[in-house]
Amino acid sequence: MAIPNQLDVKEVLYFDDLHVGQRFVSGTHLIDEEQIKAFATQFDPQPFHLDVEAAKDTLFKGLVASGWHTAASTMLLLVGSGLPIAGGIIGVGAEIAWPNPTRPNATLHVESEILELTPSRSRPDRGVATIRSETHNQLGEIVQVLSTKLVVPSRASIATRGEPGQKTL
Amino acid sequence: MAIPNQLDVKEVLYFDDLHVGQRFVSGTHLIDEEQIKAFATQFDPQPFHLDVEAAKDTLFKGLVASGWHTAASTMLLLVGSGLPIAGGIIGVGAEIAWPNPTRPNATLHVESEILELTPSRSRPDRGVATIRSETHNQLGEIVQVLSTKLVVPSRASIATRGEPGQKTL
Repeated sequence: MAIPNQLDVKEVLYFDDLHVGQRFVSGTHLIDEEQIKAFATQFDPQPFHLDVEAAKDTLFKGLVASGWHTAASTMLLLVGSGLPIAGGIIGVGAEIAWPNPTRPNATLHVESEILELTPSRSRPDRGVATIRSETHNQLGEIVQVLSTKLVVPSRASIATRGEPGQKTL
Repeated sequence: MAIPNQLDVKEVLYFDDLHVGQRFVSGTHLIDEEQIKAFATQFDPQPFHLDVEAAKDTLFKGLVASGWHTAASTMLLLVGSGLPIAGGIIGVGAEIAWPNPTRPNATLHVESEILELTPSRSRPDRGVATIRSETHNQLGEIVQVLSTKLVVPSRASIATRGEPGQKTL
Protein backbone atom coordinates (compact mmCIF):
# COMPACT_ATOMS: atom_id res chain seq x y z
CA MET A 1 0.00 0.00 0.00
CA ALA A 2 1.17 3.47 -0.80
CA ILE A 3 1.12 6.41 1.54
CA PRO A 4 -2.44 7.66 1.79
CA ASN A 5 -3.13 10.95 0.07
CA GLN A 6 -4.86 13.90 1.66
CA LEU A 7 -8.33 12.53 1.00
CA ASP A 8 -7.59 9.13 2.46
CA VAL A 9 -7.10 10.27 6.02
CA LYS A 10 -10.84 9.89 6.54
CA GLU A 11 -12.85 6.86 5.55
CA VAL A 12 -13.80 7.03 1.90
CA LEU A 13 -15.85 4.81 -0.37
CA TYR A 14 -14.66 3.12 -3.54
CA PHE A 15 -16.86 2.13 -6.48
CA ASP A 16 -17.13 -1.39 -5.01
CA ASP A 17 -18.57 0.06 -1.81
CA LEU A 18 -21.47 1.83 -3.49
CA HIS A 19 -24.95 0.52 -4.25
CA VAL A 20 -27.99 1.95 -5.97
CA GLY A 21 -30.31 3.60 -3.46
CA GLN A 22 -27.45 4.36 -1.05
CA ARG A 23 -28.04 7.69 0.68
CA PHE A 24 -25.76 10.29 2.22
CA VAL A 25 -26.64 13.29 4.36
CA SER A 26 -24.23 16.20 4.77
CA GLY A 27 -23.64 18.53 7.67
CA THR A 28 -25.13 22.03 7.56
CA HIS A 29 -23.99 25.39 6.22
CA LEU A 30 -25.42 28.82 7.06
CA ILE A 31 -25.65 31.51 4.37
CA ASP A 32 -26.21 35.02 5.71
CA GLU A 33 -26.94 38.35 4.03
CA GLU A 34 -23.30 39.43 3.99
CA GLN A 35 -22.23 36.23 2.24
CA ILE A 36 -24.99 36.62 -0.34
CA LYS A 37 -23.90 40.17 -1.14
CA ALA A 38 -20.20 39.28 -1.17
CA PHE A 39 -20.67 36.40 -3.60
CA ALA A 40 -22.94 38.51 -5.82
CA THR A 41 -20.52 41.41 -5.85
CA GLN A 42 -17.80 39.09 -7.08
CA PHE A 43 -19.76 36.91 -9.50
CA ASP A 44 -23.42 37.87 -10.02
CA PRO A 45 -23.97 41.60 -9.48
CA GLN A 46 -27.72 41.87 -10.00
CA PRO A 47 -30.05 43.94 -7.79
CA PHE A 48 -31.94 40.96 -6.34
CA HIS A 49 -28.63 39.55 -5.02
CA LEU A 50 -27.09 42.85 -3.86
CA ASP A 51 -29.63 45.22 -2.38
CA VAL A 52 -32.40 44.37 0.10
CA GLU A 53 -34.55 47.34 -0.91
CA ALA A 54 -34.17 46.92 -4.66
CA ALA A 55 -34.82 43.19 -4.33
CA LYS A 56 -38.29 43.82 -2.87
CA ASP A 57 -39.48 45.08 -6.26
CA THR A 58 -38.31 42.01 -8.18
CA LEU A 59 -39.74 38.58 -8.89
CA PHE A 60 -38.10 37.35 -5.70
CA LYS A 61 -39.77 39.92 -3.37
CA GLY A 62 -36.58 40.13 -1.36
CA LEU A 63 -32.86 39.41 -1.33
CA VAL A 64 -31.85 35.95 -2.61
CA ALA A 65 -28.51 34.23 -3.17
CA SER A 66 -27.19 33.71 -6.66
CA GLY A 67 -28.01 30.22 -7.88
CA TRP A 68 -24.26 29.75 -8.34
CA HIS A 69 -23.77 30.62 -4.67
CA THR A 70 -26.23 27.87 -3.77
CA ALA A 71 -24.35 25.52 -6.10
CA ALA A 72 -20.95 26.41 -4.63
CA SER A 73 -22.27 26.02 -1.07
CA THR A 74 -23.67 22.62 -2.01
CA MET A 75 -20.23 21.61 -3.26
CA LEU A 76 -18.73 22.70 0.06
CA LEU A 77 -21.16 20.44 1.90
CA LEU A 78 -20.53 17.49 -0.45
CA VAL A 79 -16.74 17.80 -0.19
CA GLY A 80 -16.78 18.32 3.56
CA SER A 81 -19.20 15.62 4.64
CA GLY A 82 -21.91 14.88 2.14
CA LEU A 83 -20.25 12.48 -0.27
CA PRO A 84 -17.19 10.59 1.00
CA ILE A 85 -15.99 9.33 -2.38
CA ALA A 86 -12.44 8.05 -2.84
CA GLY A 87 -10.39 10.32 -5.05
CA GLY A 88 -12.54 13.36 -4.46
CA ILE A 89 -15.60 14.67 -6.25
CA ILE A 90 -14.82 15.02 -9.93
CA GLY A 91 -17.74 15.57 -12.28
CA VAL A 92 -17.63 16.27 -15.99
CA GLY A 93 -20.97 17.99 -15.92
CA ALA A 94 -24.31 18.33 -14.22
CA GLU A 95 -27.95 19.20 -14.48
CA ILE A 96 -29.05 21.77 -11.98
CA ALA A 97 -32.39 23.26 -10.99
CA TRP A 98 -33.32 25.86 -8.39
CA PRO A 99 -36.97 25.28 -7.44
CA ASN A 100 -36.79 27.78 -4.55
CA PRO A 101 -34.37 30.63 -3.82
CA THR A 102 -31.82 30.62 -1.00
CA ARG A 103 -32.70 33.54 1.28
CA PRO A 104 -30.57 35.21 3.99
CA ASN A 105 -29.91 33.04 7.06
CA ALA A 106 -30.75 29.82 5.25
CA THR A 107 -29.22 26.76 6.87
CA LEU A 108 -28.55 24.30 4.09
CA HIS A 109 -27.84 20.60 4.06
CA VAL A 110 -27.53 18.14 1.20
CA GLU A 111 -29.17 14.74 0.80
CA SER A 112 -27.65 12.56 -1.92
CA GLU A 113 -28.75 9.27 -3.43
CA ILE A 114 -26.98 6.97 -5.84
CA LEU A 115 -29.24 6.45 -8.84
CA GLU A 116 -27.06 4.35 -11.12
CA LEU A 117 -23.69 2.61 -11.11
CA THR A 118 -21.91 1.80 -14.36
CA PRO A 119 -18.62 -0.10 -14.23
CA SER A 120 -16.17 0.99 -16.88
CA ARG A 121 -15.97 -1.52 -19.74
CA SER A 122 -12.36 -0.79 -20.52
CA ARG A 123 -11.01 0.18 -17.09
CA PRO A 124 -11.61 -2.19 -14.15
CA ASP A 125 -10.11 0.42 -11.83
CA ARG A 126 -13.08 2.78 -12.04
CA GLY A 127 -16.77 3.28 -12.64
CA VAL A 128 -19.29 6.04 -13.10
CA ALA A 129 -21.82 6.88 -10.38
CA THR A 130 -24.93 8.90 -11.20
CA ILE A 131 -25.91 10.83 -8.10
CA ARG A 132 -28.84 13.08 -7.29
CA SER A 133 -28.17 15.67 -4.60
CA GLU A 134 -30.98 17.72 -3.11
CA THR A 135 -30.09 20.85 -1.17
CA HIS A 136 -32.64 21.62 1.54
CA ASN A 137 -33.07 24.70 3.71
CA GLN A 138 -34.12 24.77 7.36
CA LEU A 139 -37.80 25.00 6.35
CA GLY A 140 -37.63 21.74 4.45
CA GLU A 141 -37.79 23.47 1.07
CA ILE A 142 -35.61 22.18 -1.74
CA VAL A 143 -33.47 25.03 -3.05
CA GLN A 144 -31.45 22.99 -5.52
CA VAL A 145 -31.54 19.64 -7.29
CA LEU A 146 -28.22 18.57 -8.77
CA SER A 147 -27.68 15.47 -10.90
CA THR A 148 -24.09 14.55 -11.61
CA LYS A 149 -22.07 11.72 -13.07
CA LEU A 150 -18.92 11.16 -11.06
CA VAL A 151 -15.88 9.07 -11.93
CA VAL A 152 -15.19 6.86 -8.89
CA PRO A 153 -12.10 4.65 -8.48
CA SER A 154 -12.61 0.99 -7.59
CA ARG A 155 -10.54 -0.93 -5.06
CA ALA A 156 -8.76 -2.47 -8.06
CA SER A 157 -7.19 0.94 -8.55
CA ILE A 158 -5.28 0.41 -5.32
CA ALA A 159 -4.27 -3.16 -6.11
CA THR A 160 -3.16 -2.58 -9.69
CA ARG A 161 -1.29 0.64 -9.16
CA GLY A 162 -0.31 0.46 -5.53
CA GLU A 163 -1.62 3.92 -4.83
CA PRO A 164 -4.87 5.41 -3.71
CA GLY A 165 -7.72 6.18 -6.02
CA GLN A 166 -7.23 9.80 -6.67
CA LYS A 167 -4.02 9.33 -8.58
CA THR A 168 -5.53 6.75 -10.87
CA LEU A 169 -8.58 8.69 -11.97
CA MET B 1 -43.21 55.06 -18.81
CA ALA B 2 -41.93 54.33 -15.35
CA ILE B 3 -38.59 55.32 -13.96
CA PRO B 4 -35.98 52.89 -15.33
CA ASN B 5 -34.60 50.42 -12.85
CA GLN B 6 -30.92 49.75 -12.27
CA LEU B 7 -30.63 47.36 -15.20
CA ASP B 8 -32.31 49.68 -17.68
CA VAL B 9 -29.68 52.39 -17.59
CA LYS B 10 -27.83 50.48 -20.31
CA GLU B 11 -29.46 49.25 -23.47
CA VAL B 12 -31.18 45.92 -22.88
CA LEU B 13 -33.11 43.54 -25.05
CA TYR B 14 -36.71 42.45 -24.56
CA PHE B 15 -38.19 39.18 -25.76
CA ASP B 16 -39.44 40.95 -28.90
CA ASP B 17 -35.87 41.97 -29.74
CA LEU B 18 -34.49 38.42 -29.75
CA HIS B 19 -34.27 35.96 -32.65
CA VAL B 20 -33.07 32.39 -32.96
CA GLY B 21 -29.43 32.30 -33.99
CA GLN B 22 -28.71 35.68 -32.40
CA ARG B 23 -25.23 35.71 -30.89
CA PHE B 24 -23.58 37.62 -28.08
CA VAL B 25 -19.90 37.83 -27.13
CA SER B 26 -18.84 38.94 -23.65
CA GLY B 27 -15.78 40.83 -22.51
CA THR B 28 -12.92 38.89 -20.88
CA HIS B 29 -12.10 37.82 -17.33
CA LEU B 30 -8.73 36.63 -16.02
CA ILE B 31 -8.56 33.84 -13.41
CA ASP B 32 -5.22 33.56 -11.64
CA GLU B 33 -3.79 31.04 -9.18
CA GLU B 34 -4.71 33.09 -6.13
CA GLN B 35 -8.34 33.35 -7.22
CA ILE B 36 -8.48 29.60 -7.88
CA LYS B 37 -7.17 28.84 -4.40
CA ALA B 38 -9.40 31.44 -2.73
CA PHE B 39 -12.57 30.10 -4.34
CA ALA B 40 -11.59 26.51 -3.57
CA THR B 41 -10.80 27.31 0.04
CA GLN B 42 -14.25 28.77 0.45
CA PHE B 43 -16.32 26.31 -1.60
CA ASP B 44 -14.43 23.33 -3.04
CA PRO B 45 -11.43 22.41 -0.85
CA GLN B 46 -9.94 19.54 -2.84
CA PRO B 47 -6.18 19.10 -3.49
CA PHE B 48 -6.38 19.69 -7.26
CA HIS B 49 -7.92 23.13 -6.60
CA LEU B 50 -5.75 24.12 -3.63
CA ASP B 51 -2.17 22.93 -3.96
CA VAL B 52 0.05 23.15 -7.05
CA GLU B 53 2.29 20.27 -5.96
CA ALA B 54 -0.50 17.91 -4.86
CA ALA B 55 -2.42 18.69 -8.06
CA LYS B 56 0.41 17.31 -10.21
CA ASP B 57 -0.38 13.79 -9.01
CA THR B 58 -4.06 13.96 -9.89
CA LEU B 59 -6.11 13.40 -13.02
CA PHE B 60 -5.62 17.06 -13.89
CA LYS B 61 -1.79 17.01 -13.80
CA GLY B 62 -1.78 20.45 -12.25
CA LEU B 63 -3.86 23.07 -10.47
CA VAL B 64 -7.32 23.69 -11.93
CA ALA B 65 -10.24 25.88 -10.94
CA SER B 66 -13.35 24.36 -9.41
CA GLY B 67 -16.01 23.85 -12.06
CA TRP B 68 -18.25 26.04 -9.93
CA HIS B 69 -15.62 28.79 -10.10
CA THR B 70 -15.75 28.56 -13.89
CA ALA B 71 -19.55 28.68 -13.69
CA ALA B 72 -19.54 31.71 -11.39
CA SER B 73 -17.00 33.51 -13.59
CA THR B 74 -19.16 32.80 -16.62
CA MET B 75 -22.11 34.37 -14.81
CA LEU B 76 -20.00 37.46 -14.10
CA LEU B 77 -19.24 37.80 -17.81
CA LEU B 78 -22.89 37.25 -18.80
CA VAL B 79 -24.19 39.81 -16.32
CA GLY B 80 -21.49 42.35 -17.13
CA SER B 81 -21.51 42.26 -20.89
CA GLY B 82 -22.37 38.90 -22.37
CA LEU B 83 -26.15 38.83 -22.30
CA PRO B 84 -27.93 42.23 -22.15
CA ILE B 85 -31.37 40.88 -21.28
CA ALA B 86 -34.07 43.17 -19.85
CA GLY B 87 -34.87 42.34 -16.25
CA GLY B 88 -31.60 40.60 -15.56
CA ILE B 89 -30.50 37.00 -16.00
CA ILE B 90 -32.90 34.75 -14.13
CA GLY B 91 -32.73 31.04 -14.84
CA VAL B 92 -34.65 28.27 -13.16
CA GLY B 93 -32.03 25.70 -14.02
CA ALA B 94 -29.26 24.70 -16.35
CA GLU B 95 -27.26 21.93 -17.92
CA ILE B 96 -23.55 22.36 -17.52
CA ALA B 97 -20.50 20.54 -18.85
CA TRP B 98 -16.80 21.16 -18.35
CA PRO B 99 -14.97 19.62 -21.34
CA ASN B 100 -11.64 21.19 -20.32
CA PRO B 101 -10.41 22.55 -16.97
CA THR B 102 -9.77 26.23 -16.25
CA ARG B 103 -6.08 26.56 -15.39
CA PRO B 104 -4.26 29.46 -13.69
CA ASN B 105 -4.04 32.64 -15.78
CA ALA B 106 -6.86 31.62 -18.07
CA THR B 107 -8.51 34.56 -19.81
CA LEU B 108 -12.12 33.60 -20.32
CA HIS B 109 -14.84 35.00 -22.53
CA VAL B 110 -18.36 33.74 -23.22
CA GLU B 111 -20.08 33.27 -26.57
CA SER B 112 -23.86 32.84 -26.36
CA GLU B 113 -26.43 31.90 -28.95
CA ILE B 114 -30.20 31.89 -28.77
CA LEU B 115 -31.41 28.41 -29.62
CA GLU B 116 -35.14 28.69 -29.09
CA LEU B 117 -37.74 31.30 -28.24
CA THR B 118 -41.07 30.30 -26.72
CA PRO B 119 -43.68 33.01 -26.08
CA SER B 120 -45.71 32.41 -22.95
CA ARG B 121 -49.20 31.11 -23.75
CA SER B 122 -50.82 32.70 -20.76
CA ARG B 123 -48.64 35.79 -20.27
CA PRO B 124 -48.08 38.13 -23.24
CA ASP B 125 -45.62 40.11 -21.15
CA ARG B 126 -42.91 37.45 -21.22
CA GLY B 127 -41.34 34.50 -23.00
CA VAL B 128 -38.70 31.84 -22.43
CA ALA B 129 -35.36 31.97 -24.23
CA THR B 130 -33.21 28.84 -24.46
CA ILE B 131 -29.59 29.96 -24.62
CA ARG B 132 -26.33 28.07 -25.08
CA SER B 133 -23.29 29.80 -23.62
CA GLU B 134 -19.79 28.53 -24.36
CA THR B 135 -16.96 29.71 -22.15
CA HIS B 136 -13.64 29.81 -24.01
CA ASN B 137 -10.11 30.32 -22.72
CA GLN B 138 -7.34 32.26 -24.44
CA LEU B 139 -6.21 29.10 -26.25
CA GLY B 140 -9.57 28.67 -27.93
CA GLU B 141 -10.46 25.69 -25.73
CA ILE B 142 -14.03 25.39 -24.46
CA VAL B 143 -13.94 25.11 -20.68
CA GLN B 144 -17.70 25.14 -20.12
CA VAL B 145 -20.92 24.66 -22.04
CA LEU B 146 -23.98 26.01 -20.29
CA SER B 147 -27.55 25.63 -21.54
CA THR B 148 -30.18 27.67 -19.74
CA LYS B 149 -33.81 28.63 -20.06
CA LEU B 150 -34.31 32.26 -19.12
CA VAL B 151 -37.54 34.13 -18.49
CA VAL B 152 -37.38 37.32 -20.58
CA PRO B 153 -39.93 40.16 -20.37
CA SER B 154 -41.51 41.40 -23.59
CA ARG B 155 -42.09 45.05 -24.43
CA ALA B 156 -45.72 44.43 -23.54
CA SER B 157 -44.54 44.18 -19.95
CA ILE B 158 -43.71 47.89 -20.09
CA ALA B 159 -46.97 48.89 -21.78
CA THR B 160 -49.30 46.83 -19.62
CA ARG B 161 -47.78 47.55 -16.26
CA GLY B 162 -46.05 50.86 -16.77
CA GLU B 163 -42.86 49.57 -15.24
CA PRO B 164 -39.73 47.93 -16.55
CA GLY B 165 -39.43 44.27 -17.22
CA GLN B 166 -37.67 43.12 -14.12
CA LYS B 167 -40.60 43.91 -11.90
CA THR B 168 -43.00 41.91 -14.01
CA LEU B 169 -41.01 38.68 -14.15
